[in-house]
Amino acid sequence: MRAVRITEFGGPEVLTITEVPDPVPGENELLIDVSRAGVNFADTHQTDDSYLAPAKLPLIPGSEVVGTTADGRRVAAMTGSGGYAEKAVVNKYLAFDVPEGVDDVSAVALLVQGMTAWFLLKKITHFQAGESIVVHAAAGGVGSLAIQLAKSMGAARVIATASTREKRDLAISLGADVALDPATEELDKAIIEANGGKRVDVVLEMTGGRVTNESLKSLAPFGRLAFYGMASREQPKPVTLPALMSHSTTVSGFWLAHAFRTPAALHQAFAELSAEVEAGRLKVLSGGDYAMSDVAKAHEDLRARRTTGKLVIDPGK
Amino acid sequence: MRAVRITEFGGPEVLTITEVPDPVPGENELLIDVSRAGVNFADTHQTDDSYLAPAKLPLIPGSEVVGTTADGRRVAAMTGSGGYAEKAVVNKYLAFDVPEGVDDVSAVALLVQGMTAWFLLKKITHFQAGESIVVHAAAGGVGSLAIQLAKSMGAARVIATASTREKRDLAISLGADVALDPATEELDKAIIEANGGKRVDVVLEMTGGRVTNESLKSLAPFGRLAFYGMASREQPKPVTLPALMSHSTTVSGFWLAHAFRTPAALHQAFAELSAEVEAGRLKVLSGGDYAMSDVAKAHEDLRARRTTGKLVIDPGK
Repeated sequence: MRAVRITEFGGPEVLTITEVPDPVPGENELLIDVSRAGVNFADTHQTDDSYLAPAKLPLIPGSEVVGTTADGRRVAAMTGSGGYAEKAVVNKYLAFDVPEGVDDVSAVALLVQGMTAWFLLKKITHFQAGESIVVHAAAGGVGSLAIQLAKSMGAARVIATASTREKRDLAISLGADVALDPATEELDKAIIEANGGKRVDVVLEMTGGRVTNESLKSLAPFGRLAFYGMASREQPKPVTLPALMSHSTTVSGFWLAHAFRTPAALHQAFAELSAEVEAGRLKVLSGGDYAMSDVAKAHEDLRARRTTGKLVIDPGK
Repeated sequence: MRAVRITEFGGPEVLTITEVPDPVPGENELLIDVSRAGVNFADTHQTDDSYLAPAKLPLIPGSEVVGTTADGRRVAAMTGSGGYAEKAVVNKYLAFDVPEGVDDVSAVALLVQGMTAWFLLKKITHFQAGESIVVHAAAGGVGSLAIQLAKSMGAARVIATASTREKRDLAISLGADVALDPATEELDKAIIEANGGKRVDVVLEMTGGRVTNESLKSLAPFGRLAFYGMASREQPKPVTLPALMSHSTTVSGFWLAHAFRTPAALHQAFAELSAEVEAGRLKVLSGGDYAMSDVAKAHEDLRARRTTGKLVIDPGK
């Protein structure tokens, strides 16, 4: 089969297409004929080996696929790696049946990105109806879904941030009440002003550096900040526990890989997310449907923050 | 009326009894004939001005009382200060009717300490049935209640820590499955071993320093550590957000003062805690019923960690 295989770590240039043997499913695994593979920011970290989990070479990147099993089931599935290929093997407990009303790009987007948004809101920050929320990187895969889910859960106010006017307009079109440029000076004050002068209850943050630092300063008592990525590759300031105590603040880290240990919660998440898509309350943005031969360009576009919404590659091309 | 009034910050020696004018209730306030006033560790910080909120002199310490209103209601109530006195004024929204089956010492213990335990479990860490929990300072006011509440909520395993054999025996008698000395070397490993080799889900921590640092290392993915005090006065290490992400860890600070803004939750907490006491599932330990004239000794005993359970002073003596 054709696959993207990397034999040395580096930038997008190391992503090359190779002919490799078909993978063979083991016990409790399914072989998937891949229709589309999702491209995630984490894949860029995996490619240059800057990810949370060290990668091993040679490596076929790609942690999510949608396709068909040998017995004809249409499933979306999570994989540790191996997604950028014509065929992939997946753990059968991490494969979710896709309802008819959910197209391929949406199904892939509900995996890493939809699940991340769902876990951040439901399991990590315990977001409640009537609360305010800041969604950073709001035009991104997780952000664009988190805005809509938070609204659907009864958010009092959704404050989006995104780096360009186009992305901010997009965030508003998805239901955000206001959209800010994260480069705004004194971002904490801008957030509070955007929330009608009140501190905010929840922040979903995946950029790092000063955006994290200033977001923390915008939290109300009992406020929760969930940190689930560091796209700027800049460390935020460390947090001291007495400072958290002085404002009854909660700071959470979240890495979806840990959720793989709780398949029941993943299945609940996929079912709830699919139902939201079918009901028309959750719209997945297509960020680009790339031929597999254009995978390097997909990574370049993602790293340059030129994309909005879900990127997929088509292993058939 | 007689009251404990401090005119300079310092140790227990600054706590002296003085004759002062009766307080006058303002709008939305009640005048309470104080039957017992609670003594909390936070009061020692207020007395030497090392508390989260700076104190102003002259000051009557004491943040909780039980007593009778002019119209004969028996109430337990929270006060910012002013509790160590024959009479106290309290915000009427922070006064809770005490059921007959709940005695004075228990009623006072359900205020700061009971509410703290309730908030830590229900609102901060979202403790779930089937989870494991570490309760540090387990023989203290909050700890002794948290052990029992966690058990009542269906804890799979309660691991207590306390500094003496007597306190550890007490923790076991309250329902802890195992009790450790927090001075144990490699406390993280001892906790995991005490949990049958598995990392733990929740830690309630109020001591600081290495106990906090090592507790964090004992957490399972999706683990939550709530930091609600620093009795050792030693700072734990600051926490970095990428480190939280790499284990999907949540760290919360909690200061009960913030809960005063949510009276509905406080009333729910007091009602639930009272019901647990009446049902015999929650036993409040009396740590000493001191005459008000012995208030300095009460603070000394608390600071020296000689006490277990709830300390109260009797303004009538």
